[in-house]
Amino acid sequence: MPTEEQKLAAVHAYIAAFDQGDAEAAAALFADDAVVEDPVGTPPKRGIAEIREFYAMSIATGAKLELLGDPRCVADYVAFPFAVKLAMNGAEMVIEVIDTFRLNADGKITEMRAFFGPANMKTL
Amino acid sequence: MPTEEQKLAAVHAYIAAFDQGDAEAAAALFADDAVVEDPVGTPPKRGIAEIREFYAMSIATGAKLELLGDPRCVADYVAFPFAVKLAMNGAEMVIEVIDTFRLNADGKITEMRAFFGPANMKTL
Repeated sequence: MPTEEQKLAAVHAYIAAFDQGDAEAAAALFADDAVVEDPVGTPPKRGIAEIREFYAMSIATGAKLELLGDPRCVADYVAFPFAVKLAMNGAEMVIEVIDTFRLNADGKITEMRAFFGPANMKTL
Repeated sequence: MPTEEQKLAAVHAYIAAFDQGDAEAAAALFADDAVVEDPVGTPPKRGIAEIREFYAMSIATGAKLELLGDPRCVADYVAFPFAVKLAMNGAEMVIEVIDTFRLNADGKITEMRAFFGPANMKTL
């Protein structure tokens, strides 16, 4: 079972990886056989190679993340509400998301799911 | 697949059921074979009889719910951040939670999971 410290560290390191534009740092938070479903309902990225490629693309958009409340740590999960801020076609855009991370005893993310839909995307 | 309207209606009816102290109205939002894991990591309540009993106890605490951001609707899910406000041993308490609901095509909740831990419970 991951500790609360490991769960919070994963969330903060994830946000920092976007801040620093460091896709390798984001991918390094995941277990080798992790599964990423972002958004929920789309074909999952399976394994560290697909996950690395996914974050290379995500972070290349220049997106920055900002927590919108305290992470909720429970069992081997942490769920957290946040905003994604990015510029798209010259317009500033904010997407309000909830992510859930499931972690292993090494503090690595084994499953990530991102909850957001069209109604959560707003241009400023 | 449930519609976005069904998902938002379920969230708002859930909050209203607590507001009105109406455990039957809360239970009526769930499918007969639904599973409730609240909080995540505890033994799930399976089926409408266990779910009805769970909400009878939950709502009897006098807890009221307040959204802390827009619900995130995606695929057959809605995730939403909220505060639970209740009086416990004479002290006002706030618990910050994230729930995920999965719904069927009839708009009934088939799976509910509640994410919160000790760090999300605060006395005022």
